[in-house]
Amino acid sequence: MSDKSIPSSAVDALYGLASRRSFLRRAAATVVAGGAIAACTDSSAQSVSAKAADHSGGTTAPNPVVPSTAAAAATMDAMHEAAMKAFPAKTEGMGNQLLAARLENGVKVYELTATQIQWETAPGQKVEAWAYNDQVPGPTIRVREGDRVKLILHNKLSESTAIHFHGLELPNKQDGVTFITQPPVKPGESYTYEFTIPEGNHGSHMYHSHHNSAKQVGLGLLGAFIVEPRKPMAIEKVDADELMILNDGMHGYTLNGKSFPATVPIKVKKGQKLRIRFMNEGMMIHPMHLHGMHMTVITKDGWPVPAPWRCDTLNVAPGERWDVIVNCNNPGVWAFHCHILPHAESDHGMFGMVTALIVA
Amino acid sequence: MSDKSIPSSAVDALYGLASRRSFLRRAAATVVAGGAIAACTDSSAQSVSAKAADHSGGTTAPNPVVPSTAAAAATMDAMHEAAMKAFPAKTEGMGNQLLAARLENGVKVYELTATQIQWETAPGQKVEAWAYNDQVPGPTIRVREGDRVKLILHNKLSESTAIHFHGLELPNKQDGVTFITQPPVKPGESYTYEFTIPEGNHGSHMYHSHHNSAKQVGLGLLGAFIVEPRKPMAIEKVDADELMILNDGMHGYTLNGKSFPATVPIKVKKGQKLRIRFMNEGMMIHPMHLHGMHMTVITKDGWPVPAPWRCDTLNVAPGERWDVIVNCNNPGVWAFHCHILPHAESDHGMFGMVTALIVA
Amino acid sequence: MSDKSIPSSAVDALYGLASRRSFLRRAAATVVAGGAIAACTDSSAQSVSAKAADHSGGTTAPNPVVPSTAAAAATMDAMHEAAMKAFPAKTEGMGNQLLAARLENGVKVYELTATQIQWETAPGQKVEAWAYNDQVPGPTIRVREGDRVKLILHNKLSESTAIHFHGLELPNKQDGVTFITQPPVKPGESYTYEFTIPEGNHGSHMYHSHHNSAKQVGLGLLGAFIVEPRKPMAIEKVDADELMILNDGMHGYTLNGKSFPATVPIKVKKGQKLRIRFMNEGMMIHPMHLHGMHMTVITKDGWPVPAPWRCDTLNVAPGERWDVIVNCNNPGVWAFHCHILPHAESDHGMFGMVTALIVA
Repeated sequence: MSDKSIPSSAVDALYGLASRRSFLRRAAATVVAGGAIAACTDSSAQSVSAKAADHSGGTTAPNPVVPSTAAAAATMDAMHEAAMKAFPAKTEGMGNQLLAARLENGVKVYELTATQIQWETAPGQKVEAWAYNDQVPGPTIRVREGDRVKLILHNKLSESTAIHFHGLELPNKQDGVTFITQPPVKPGESYTYEFTIPEGNHGSHMYHSHHNSAKQVGLGLLGAFIVEPRKPMAIEKVDADELMILNDGMHGYTLNGKSFPATVPIKVKKGQKLRIRFMNEGMMIHPMHLHGMHMTVITKDGWPVPAPWRCDTLNVAPGERWDVIVNCNNPGVWAFHCHILPHAESDHGMFGMVTALIVA
Repeated sequence: MSDKSIPSSAVDALYGLASRRSFLRRAAATVVAGGAIAACTDSSAQSVSAKAADHSGGTTAPNPVVPSTAAAAATMDAMHEAAMKAFPAKTEGMGNQLLAARLENGVKVYELTATQIQWETAPGQKVEAWAYNDQVPGPTIRVREGDRVKLILHNKLSESTAIHFHGLELPNKQDGVTFITQPPVKPGESYTYEFTIPEGNHGSHMYHSHHNSAKQVGLGLLGAFIVEPRKPMAIEKVDADELMILNDGMHGYTLNGKSFPATVPIKVKKGQKLRIRFMNEGMMIHPMHLHGMHMTVITKDGWPVPAPWRCDTLNVAPGERWDVIVNCNNPGVWAFHCHILPHAESDHGMFGMVTALIVA
Repeated sequence: MSDKSIPSSAVDALYGLASRRSFLRRAAATVVAGGAIAACTDSSAQSVSAKAADHSGGTTAPNPVVPSTAAAAATMDAMHEAAMKAFPAKTEGMGNQLLAARLENGVKVYELTATQIQWETAPGQKVEAWAYNDQVPGPTIRVREGDRVKLILHNKLSESTAIHFHGLELPNKQDGVTFITQPPVKPGESYTYEFTIPEGNHGSHMYHSHHNSAKQVGLGLLGAFIVEPRKPMAIEKVDADELMILNDGMHGYTLNGKSFPATVPIKVKKGQKLRIRFMNEGMMIHPMHLHGMHMTVITKDGWPVPAPWRCDTLNVAPGERWDVIVNCNNPGVWAFHCHILPHAESDHGMFGMVTALIVA
């Protein structure tokens, strides 16, 4: 590498604390993942990678400090390849699992228990999480407009908490804002919300803590609250319906609680119609870019847009929900990522807010 | 609190300089406010809070360093409650006051004097401000399309300045950009702008400095410039018409120049139609989230949107204006805040870009 | 200046690393530019500036440390004036040059060579760039829907690379994502992409590296890929068609690869219709504000918006493209800049993401 090159550390410095931490973890994880792959492949990149490793580690090599450009590039490529080959990587835990309701006299009853857990965002990358039912994001609640819903929150955290139903137009007492609409739910206490989903209030909503929320939502106390319409619009009759919950901050850059390569690809068949529900629970915008096909925006915060519009990059701001339709007519493995590139790739390869749409 | 918990200081570190400074001020303010409330209530939270205070201060307590989870949670809750109970807190000064015009031969004459003042953004939290007519935001100018307007700027600052009418399509000489359309208005000088409001150029506009503007607008040289249409659209016939000027940076996170709990709630009667004019004079996006009811977006930068659309979270970028209608049909006290949560809440309770919509 | 004033250094501190570096470079550049102007003008501001310089440098001056308010303001004004007077400043190199195709059996053949160069973003401000054909942004590729295109990439960099065609819906193998759709193109290697532009996929697209992209795009491996429609919409028949590629990060805040005063003004005649194609290749939003006239938004990511809408401030997020029409009916020199003010102005005058629309 020429001495005029900008070193990786300078690039890293631009991206700040959160991503630097991810870079370091990523780098560590990559070495492990790369090793695993080296054991089962013999691609030329891997061989070059091995040679480069000899260079940097060997004391008898003629020029151990300054590897050639080709070797340095190959070493970087090997890290990038290892990250890609690791996808989709297995990790403990899975968020967004559909929460089953208990029916009591026509009321759908849900229980959420908030606890402190360890959450694996990428292989070997465990973070402290505050979670509903041991998941980040919390379990998905899916009801229909007009449903009567009872939701019981059990607080097993060390702080008080409360749940706000973001996007639902409920009676004020059910709004979940401590000291305005309810007292805080103290450690060890339980609290019951009960309400009827208003007519017309269907769509992609969220539930999350509204007490010390910058910390509590940042640590994982959030989930999807989806309200199905009585009469779906023609455009929303789809073959697949996927969540894409964006987050940043204390857990790094995540999609549905996981960082690449532990994110889960969306798999559809050619010709299928896919709905994606974007929700931003973080503190930064994330312009999500889909390769190979465009997205048609059909709802904003659950409300149908008056005239659906198309894009390949959708800017999702904190608190927003956007639903889009993708006509999956282009076969292949398509990158799907935040286009703030430092949220998606480093010198060590792709990480963070990256997944794939696989059209087979 | 478990030793695996993330300490507040780590959370604070993520939010950077501006919010950290607010946190510190907020913490100081909270102690005072909390004390006041402890004197007049006997809620259990307050009692626990008192006990916790004993723990931390007492040298004879059995375990003075590690208060129990319950006590720590109660201490935090008390700070949160104190912040809420303090709302709406009285502070000196009020921005956005309607500026009366002097009529001279059919011309509406306005005078703006720019000076350096101290501005109270929250109780006890005084900051240096550069202000028009001693207000942050400056006084609201409200005219009608076709009006002839004369605006006299008196500069009593230590720097030169100038006024740009952001959103108005004026003759170039009236555009207020120093060294392009006019010379700078030096300290001690006055300068007169005079123009006719163009037909069709109605809506929510702004005026602000366009000389050394990152500093001068950041310090408060900004205000609303509203142009009423000759023939209002049916959708904009409302019962209440409110400004929501967003700012960040040197004065912390503010709504109409004040930080929670000193922000002013919007009060309406059930069934009323409310118009809110969002304007961003800061340097960050602020996705404003209204609880309990949705907003219908009717104009962008003063221009009617071709098809009004609904949302509960509206992303407002620097320089943008968005007007929305809220049909206030859900009674209660509704939180209304920026959904970048670190702009609205800390471990010490809500602060910054938070207010309420009160439907009675 | 009063001792209550906020010093410039405090203002600078709010804006972070990237802009601070720009400030420093800008300050250095301004001294040079100011000197040049002082030699050819005798404006009072310049005389005061000269005096102020004497103060700060002279040891025999009566009060060298605290210049009077008027002198300090005049010194600042002189720096602002120098920046304005320097516009449009000459620099080496020009991006976005139209790339000529070589026709081979009905196929349009383009060649792009990626190399490391020095790029002058503002007078005297040279940065390391990774560039296609020695330009930042790279040369503009302009084709028509249905065209057969062959693009040959020559990699003369020290790292592997690859090209993604952002917005084009190509066969998966042509998508340019290393280790997903192709192997990396190693240093010294060449790689050929070949595809037919899909019908309906016209509009403002981009090409850029998709290997180690946070660094490689940040350093300049990006360009416009414009696809003309077979049948243009009536609204897009224009007299002038301009690119506005936004970037931030390692090269500072740039428009089409240059920082003010080295940005190039857009010049049109009164009554002409202008199309501007905004593209964001950076990692921050940039709400672009046009003075004096409004913009009508006609496409998003190349797709016609169902109902064009008007604005004067358009928020452009990373990866997005927005096309607008301006009816240039207001004569004058109009400021045109990012409305995140620290991206456009410092205590030393305008810099970064600033240009002008000149209607003559």
